[in-house]
Amino acid sequence: MEVLIGDPYRLDPLRDWDGRLRECNRDEIPGLPSSDGEVFFGLKRGAPMKIIETVKEMQAYAESLRIAGKKIAFVPTMGYFHEGHLDLMRNGRKQGDCLVISIYVNPTQFGPNEDLAKYPRDFERDRKMAASVGVDVIFYPPNEEMYPDNYQTYVNVEGVTDNLCGLSRPGHFRGVTTVCCKLFNMVKPHVTIFGKKDFQQLTAIKRMVIDLNMDLEVVAMQTTRETDGLAMSSRNIYLKPEERESALSLSRSLKMAKEMYNRGERDAGVIVNKVRTFIGDHPHARIDYVHICDTKTMKDIERLGGEAVIALAVRVGAARLIDNYVFGDPLEI
Amino acid sequence: MEVLIGDPYRLDPLRDWDGRLRECNRDEIPGLPSSDGEVFFGLKRGAPMKIIETVKEMQAYAESLRIAGKKIAFVPTMGYFHEGHLDLMRNGRKQGDCLVISIYVNPTQFGPNEDLAKYPRDFERDRKMAASVGVDVIFYPPNEEMYPDNYQTYVNVEGVTDNLCGLSRPGHFRGVTTVCCKLFNMVKPHVTIFGKKDFQQLTAIKRMVIDLNMDLEVVAMQTTRETDGLAMSSRNIYLKPEERESALSLSRSLKMAKEMYNRGERDAGVIVNKVRTFIGDHPHARIDYVHICDTKTMKDIERLGGEAVIALAVRVGAARLIDNYVFGDPLEI
Repeated sequence: MEVLIGDPYRLDPLRDWDGRLRECNRDEIPGLPSSDGEVFFGLKRGAPMKIIETVKEMQAYAESLRIAGKKIAFVPTMGYFHEGHLDLMRNGRKQGDCLVISIYVNPTQFGPNEDLAKYPRDFERDRKMAASVGVDVIFYPPNEEMYPDNYQTYVNVEGVTDNLCGLSRPGHFRGVTTVCCKLFNMVKPHVTIFGKKDFQQLTAIKRMVIDLNMDLEVVAMQTTRETDGLAMSSRNIYLKPEERESALSLSRSLKMAKEMYNRGERDAGVIVNKVRTFIGDHPHARIDYVHICDTKTMKDIERLGGEAVIALAVRVGAARLIDNYVFGDPLEI
Repeated sequence: MEVLIGDPYRLDPLRDWDGRLRECNRDEIPGLPSSDGEVFFGLKRGAPMKIIETVKEMQAYAESLRIAGKKIAFVPTMGYFHEGHLDLMRNGRKQGDCLVISIYVNPTQFGPNEDLAKYPRDFERDRKMAASVGVDVIFYPPNEEMYPDNYQTYVNVEGVTDNLCGLSRPGHFRGVTTVCCKLFNMVKPHVTIFGKKDFQQLTAIKRMVIDLNMDLEVVAMQTTRETDGLAMSSRNIYLKPEERESALSLSRSLKMAKEMYNRGERDAGVIVNKVRTFIGDHPHARIDYVHICDTKTMKDIERLGGEAVIALAVRVGAARLIDNYVFGDPLEI
């Protein structure tokens, strides 16, 4: 089923989010421009946002764009947007003629004891936020479209997923690379934009794209942070007010690591120990891991030489928070 | 490096197969038509055959065809062609505007004790045979293009690869599905043609294409046989003359199974036992497996009801031969 929101060529009827057709007035449609504007591939640019729920329609639309010589930029997400997502979309808006995002909470990347059921979802909120940054298409497939009966194929990136979250969350990266492979085959993008906050995920996606010869550019973006330094995450809503100070231990310890590096420290063990001690002094924080790794292989290193990342996973109350810093990158906290 | 064979727009020079440029005459070029014929995307249709050795060039060429609205048909092969390969190509010729084949002996689908090193190869012979059936592009990548350093990504189709050759050849199907996923991303076909001789492989490829949402049609073709019934295979060259009679036990036992089925036998065990006894009576034949399976799941079945296949793997001398029969299909022996 395809729903066109505010397409000027068929303004009414519009669908409710429960799928029922209803009549509506022009001013009910968010983001509809007052003038007609530039015609863009049958849709008015910047105005109507397409919502597609089936693989077949997504592929047909993507193929029609590609044949017309349009460049497709793609931001895959699990929804419940924050400024970090919007920054990825703003970047995507610049990269392509058509900006597609997906909203799908992918069950195969959650472990049996993880937060799949309570992961925050709010499509109506997401839809408005996406429209505000000029998204052209939201791909919003239901589970039956993604994993129909008899589903049995998985994409495994080996080496780079062994360490860090690969140890704490067995099967997680298999779920991530599989769903991204599927989404890339559905959306057929020329360029895809990922955040550096999930650094190991980014590394695995880059590796998959190279190894499986996907004809696709992967663009990485710096982590977007709250003004107090906390890396933005949909999971930050799990934090209670009294846990906030402990949650800040992640970004603050990264700043500490950066300063040690800038003062000439090259012994990874020394930096890791300082960071562990600092985080460990916070009452609500339980360290899952602190590693310094080579950014290409994600293997632990002893001395800082080539491009390296310090990566943290820390439980603060009900939230499992991750953050990282690539030595030499900017870190504005 | 890209080599154009007999492109009428740059007839000379032509490259030797060791890569040296040389001058040649028009009549040296296999398959060049006497008249100019129809212009096809900058090449003369039916005449010159393109040989592409890099992923980058293959993708760029495929993309240019797709943007021009041309339909790409693709036959992946390991070379050393026989009539079975040529039948796949003849079918592919009808399916698309551009027929691409690949020749690549894929190391990741061979086990450590298998015949990778001695697998037959003859590119010059293959090139001429491909030209004779109207192939437009041979994609002929070296190992470095397919599996560069740090390669670490694999596509696993689970259920359907557990039984049969999945038991005898651990890792084999992982290699097959991985290399096909890569080749599909390189060649960007609209349709791909596989033979039914490798029935479990066909099932795994179909499953991968569905599960990973590859926008691609998989066409299956009946097994091509020698006049005596032996299923064509590049590995038949391993057979010694005195082993030929034993090799025929495969197709003859399938004919026997077909006749039992046509007479009303529905007990899979009864058919399997008859077949095992028949093959076992041949002096050079050592049975690897005889199974009757559901064609969708590749799980053993006890009674014939839905679509079912009898699949055999038998060692005859140095050759490991496979053959199968889908009950209800034609079997011309």
